[in-house]
Amino acid sequence: MRQSLTPFDVRTGGRGLIEITREVSAWVADSGIDVGLLTVFCRHTSASLTIQENAAPEVRQDIVDWLDRIAPEDSGWVHDDEGPDDMPAHLKSILTGVSLSIPVASGRPTLGTWQGIYLVEHRTRPHTRQVDLHLLGE
Amino acid sequence: MRQSLTPFDVRTGGRGLIEITREVSAWVADSGIDVGLLTVFCRHTSASLTIQENAAPEVRQDIVDWLDRIAPEDSGWVHDDEGPDDMPAHLKSILTGVSLSIPVASGRPTLGTWQGIYLVEHRTRPHTRQVDLHLLGE
Amino acid sequence: MRQSLTPFDVRTGGRGLIEITREVSAWVADSGIDVGLLTVFCRHTSASLTIQENAAPEVRQDIVDWLDRIAPEDSGWVHDDEGPDDMPAHLKSILTGVSLSIPVASGRPTLGTWQGIYLVEHRTRPHTRQVDLHLLGE
Repeated sequence: MRQSLTPFDVRTGGRGLIEITREVSAWVADSGIDVGLLTVFCRHTSASLTIQENAAPEVRQDIVDWLDRIAPEDSGWVHDDEGPDDMPAHLKSILTGVSLSIPVASGRPTLGTWQGIYLVEHRTRPHTRQVDLHLLGE
Repeated sequence: MRQSLTPFDVRTGGRGLIEITREVSAWVADSGIDVGLLTVFCRHTSASLTIQENAAPEVRQDIVDWLDRIAPEDSGWVHDDEGPDDMPAHLKSILTGVSLSIPVASGRPTLGTWQGIYLVEHRTRPHTRQVDLHLLGE
Repeated sequence: MRQSLTPFDVRTGGRGLIEITREVSAWVADSGIDVGLLTVFCRHTSASLTIQENAAPEVRQDIVDWLDRIAPEDSGWVHDDEGPDDMPAHLKSILTGVSLSIPVASGRPTLGTWQGIYLVEHRTRPHTRQVDLHLLGE
C-alpha cells in the first residue's frame, strides 16, 4: 500500500464550472496505483467541487443559474467585505462541498459514463484555485 | 493494511430514498477488515447518496418534497433532453452529493444510532443504479 | 502505512457553527502521521460538518440565516416528532453533509489559509455531538 499527494492549480474565468476530469485521471494513471481511493480537495471557501454530467454544456449553465437563485447577491448579507458576490460564494461552496472521494480501479477513477469532475468558481472575477489530489492504494 | 472494492446494484422505484445500510454493513462485515475507512460512491448524475434518519418514514417523504421545492421542474431549465425531471435530478444530485466517507470500527461502519445510508433516486421512473463500495483498513 | 481512529465530543450551544479546526489539527499532529488522509465524520442526522471561512464571524451568522431560509420551520413538514426545528435540522444536515475528507501533509490537514472545520448544530437546544476522527497514512 502506498500513497501520492500533489497540489494542482486550476485557472478559472470567473463564475462557472471548469472540468478537471482529464487532468485528474492522467495524474491517477501516472501514479502507477491500480486500485485505491482518490481524494480531491479544494483549498478555498468561495470555490468548490462537484461531480456532474459532462455531456450537455447546457447543464453547466443551468447549474450556475440555480446556484445564483439559491444564494442571491441581493439578500442583505451582513458579510460583504469583498463585494456582493462574497457571501453567495461562501454559501454555494457549502452547498456543493470541497472534497470528493472516488474509488480507483484499473488505474482509473470509477466515474460513471456521464460523470465529470468539476471545480466550481463562485466568484465573479477569474482566480487561480488550488486543488489537492491524494491517492492511496496499490 | 489491505483494501476491497465491489460494485453494488441498487434498484429504485422512481423518485425516493432507498436504504442500503444493511447491504453495505453486511459487505463490510464479510470483508474481515476490523478498522478502516469505507467509501460509498454513486456512479450517476441524477441519483445520489445521503446519510439520514432511519427511524421515521415521514422524514423520507419530507426530504423528497423539499428537494422538489429547491429544484422544481417548472423553472425554465435550458437542459431538458430527457424530460422535465432531467435537470432537477442533476441539481438534487449536486446538493446531496455522490460520495460518503465513513470510518469502520469493530467491523462495522461507525454510524450513529439514527443514521442510515440511502441512495436517493431523483428521476421519476425506476432505474438500476450502480454504487461502488471501497474499504481500506486492517 | 498505519491508521488512527478516535471519537471526539463537541458541545454545542444550540443552532450555530462551532469551529473544531484546532482540536482536529492537534489530534493529527499527535498521531505522528506525516502524510495521509483525514476523515471527519459526524454521527448525527440533525448536526453536520462544513469547511468555511474562519476569519469574519459575520459569515457564520449569514450561514445560519441562509440555512433557515432554505429549510424553514413553518413549511408544513409531516415529520415534527421533536418540534418545529426537527425536520429543518435533518434537511440542513443533508445540504451540508456529515463527512469531510482532507489530505494531510507535514503532519497537518492541507486546509487553505481561510478554511476552518466546523460542526454545525441545527437544533435550537444545546447538544453534545459525537464526531469520529480517522487518519490513514505514514
